[in-house]
Amino acid sequence: MKIAAVDPFYLRMPDITTAADGTQDTLLVRVRTDTGLEGWGECDASPLVSLAVYCCPMSHGNIINIRTSLIGETLDSPDDVLQLSEKVLRNGLDIQQIQHAYSGAEIALWDVIGQQLETPVYRLLAEMSDTSDSAHPKLPYASVLFGDTPEATHRIAAGLREQGYRAAKFGWGAMGKFGEANDIALVQAAREGMGTDAQIMIDAGVVWRADHETAYRRAEVFAQFSPTWLEEPLAPDAIDAYGSLTKKRPRVPIAAGEGSDTYRTAEDLIVHGGVQFVQIDAGRIGGIMPSFQVRQLAERHGIQYVNHTFKSHLSLAAALHVFATNPDFDLLEYPAAGSELSQCLVRDPFRVASDGMVRVRELPGLGVHVDTEAIRPHLAPVRIEVGADTVFEQPPLV
Amino acid sequence: MKIAAVDPFYLRMPDITTAADGTQDTLLVRVRTDTGLEGWGECDASPLVSLAVYCCPMSHGNIINIRTSLIGETLDSPDDVLQLSEKVLRNGLDIQQIQHAYSGAEIALWDVIGQQLETPVYRLLAEMSDTSDSAHPKLPYASVLFGDTPEATHRIAAGLREQGYRAAKFGWGAMGKFGEANDIALVQAAREGMGTDAQIMIDAGVVWRADHETAYRRAEVFAQFSPTWLEEPLAPDAIDAYGSLTKKRPRVPIAAGEGSDTYRTAEDLIVHGGVQFVQIDAGRIGGIMPSFQVRQLAERHGIQYVNHTFKSHLSLAAALHVFATNPDFDLLEYPAAGSELSQCLVRDPFRVASDGMVRVRELPGLGVHVDTEAIRPHLAPVRIEVGADTVFEQPPLV
Repeated sequence: MKIAAVDPFYLRMPDITTAADGTQDTLLVRVRTDTGLEGWGECDASPLVSLAVYCCPMSHGNIINIRTSLIGETLDSPDDVLQLSEKVLRNGLDIQQIQHAYSGAEIALWDVIGQQLETPVYRLLAEMSDTSDSAHPKLPYASVLFGDTPEATHRIAAGLREQGYRAAKFGWGAMGKFGEANDIALVQAAREGMGTDAQIMIDAGVVWRADHETAYRRAEVFAQFSPTWLEEPLAPDAIDAYGSLTKKRPRVPIAAGEGSDTYRTAEDLIVHGGVQFVQIDAGRIGGIMPSFQVRQLAERHGIQYVNHTFKSHLSLAAALHVFATNPDFDLLEYPAAGSELSQCLVRDPFRVASDGMVRVRELPGLGVHVDTEAIRPHLAPVRIEVGADTVFEQPPLV
Repeated sequence: MKIAAVDPFYLRMPDITTAADGTQDTLLVRVRTDTGLEGWGECDASPLVSLAVYCCPMSHGNIINIRTSLIGETLDSPDDVLQLSEKVLRNGLDIQQIQHAYSGAEIALWDVIGQQLETPVYRLLAEMSDTSDSAHPKLPYASVLFGDTPEATHRIAAGLREQGYRAAKFGWGAMGKFGEANDIALVQAAREGMGTDAQIMIDAGVVWRADHETAYRRAEVFAQFSPTWLEEPLAPDAIDAYGSLTKKRPRVPIAAGEGSDTYRTAEDLIVHGGVQFVQIDAGRIGGIMPSFQVRQLAERHGIQYVNHTFKSHLSLAAALHVFATNPDFDLLEYPAAGSELSQCLVRDPFRVASDGMVRVRELPGLGVHVDTEAIRPHLAPVRIEVGADTVFEQPPLV
């Protein structure tokens, strides 16, 4: 079959705030074939900047947009997906945003080829890599922001516990901004709200930049509350600082990786940053295959791969296929408090099963389905003119 | 003074081809202050994608556009430039294209503050870093594409020699695409056309991707023609392959770095890729200061810093200020065959002096001046609508 259309859709809530909540808007990418198949993917990136990568005029042989690279191409096998990815990235060599933007299309291509072959994406990945094709359940951890105060954080944690969560990550907000005592109080509130039998994770939201000494002190002092990890204490590119931090072996393991825009960035963080949990967003790093390659790298290095997902359950589906077959990678970031947009985006969101676990779908492709009716009110139609040309006009969401 | 306006301008030639010629279009950024000063910078990046970073709607606290971060801010000193850069990058943490896009504004901020303080930018950098403020001339090497055949390449080389160039780099085109014999014939033609007393450089245009063995064989076989370096034999993120290549110590030194989108990418290439020449484009890596930091890193590692410049002489000015004060870093990439747009972009291009050298200007700021009259016919006005909002409307080029 041939790729007939590659269409980005900018969706958003009416009011956007500076809160570190990635579900306030999104960019979906729909791929259609000449045989009538349709696949979807979601980018975790600036919708407008990424959309521009689908339609920007050619600058030279290293700046060619994604639509030009894909439309009309043959798509009959997983190998075709890899070759198309190579073409897109080669044609976009000098577009820095290429991975963020292409992620949505790459995920949609997997969705299409999985439907065509009537196979879940995780099994296609297992076949290609000659590894086990048994899927294993994941323990979902609710991913939420810290409350503004320890008290508010305690309420959030207690609420999650009531909903049945056995693990929860608290991040950003006041963490790191009002001194050590407040940081400790926030973590203590999270622990007490969730109870001693739950897993808690702490996300510092890059607050200490390159200051690995403060990060080390916090990791040591947070250890009394036994968090599973301390996440992103430092800036994404402060690799040497990560290396200095992890060499001291703080009692709380260090996690990072959501800022990985390329496979190399993740590799750099693992090999030179020494993190113990690597957190990859398939909606940023260029899609499912580069995420899978980081998973394999994590396996070789004996560290744990975790998804980064702070969008809808379309992103969650892509994330699950990447590491469903590794039983040791048993934690799943599970967006628990997203916007109404992110909640309504797919018709068939992942529910937590009665055993407290989440499982990948045994359905062709990604196994989730975009609810175009529900999201249509959130569509922000885009129109871009360059000189006398309209380089982007919003395709209808039908 | 306060920043009053930050305006991007998309300029282009009427016909754009896939040739690896970065001068076919460009994105200029103009910064104006409430005191009537005006500075300019140029990005080496997709104009539309980068322009979107100046106006994209906020997604959350980590996706805030460049105009929002800059307009209304105070600009009275070089330290203000650094603080504004930190703000822009922090607000754009989740915008992959942020460095490519911000480069133009950062360069324009230096141009403004240099004018305000009546000091060339290179001296401001020397003061801030407490290093020598003596500028040294550079030997310009003409940067051209290989001809389609050895014969065409010979003609190009002979023409450059006739124009008085004592150094020239030949790149992309047929290199690496038609087997070893043709590759050798291309390099031989470049050498014979330029003569034995000239410096020649070979730019392989990432053609061997991660295949460091072929790259090594070519470096060895090219050694008979004594090129100064073999540039970008491998893909920008193939750092391990670069490491494998340079560990074998090929007889021709390896150069790379134009793909460095961040300081860390350049550091990774130097520390783990082992290159002997690091080539940085201030129009991609985020501007003058991160380029200067890579220059300092190169000094510490005992390797040579070179500019990457394949745009107009506005970019060349920014490039020169970065490393004017290091006499050992004596080579300058000098665009010799750019488009009419790139040729007319500044009123006062850098001429090669009678001694064959190029010198930074002893003038406030960048020391070159955009010719708005000359470039106006090349302006491609951009208009971007998102939902009911016009998020970008082209400001006039006056």
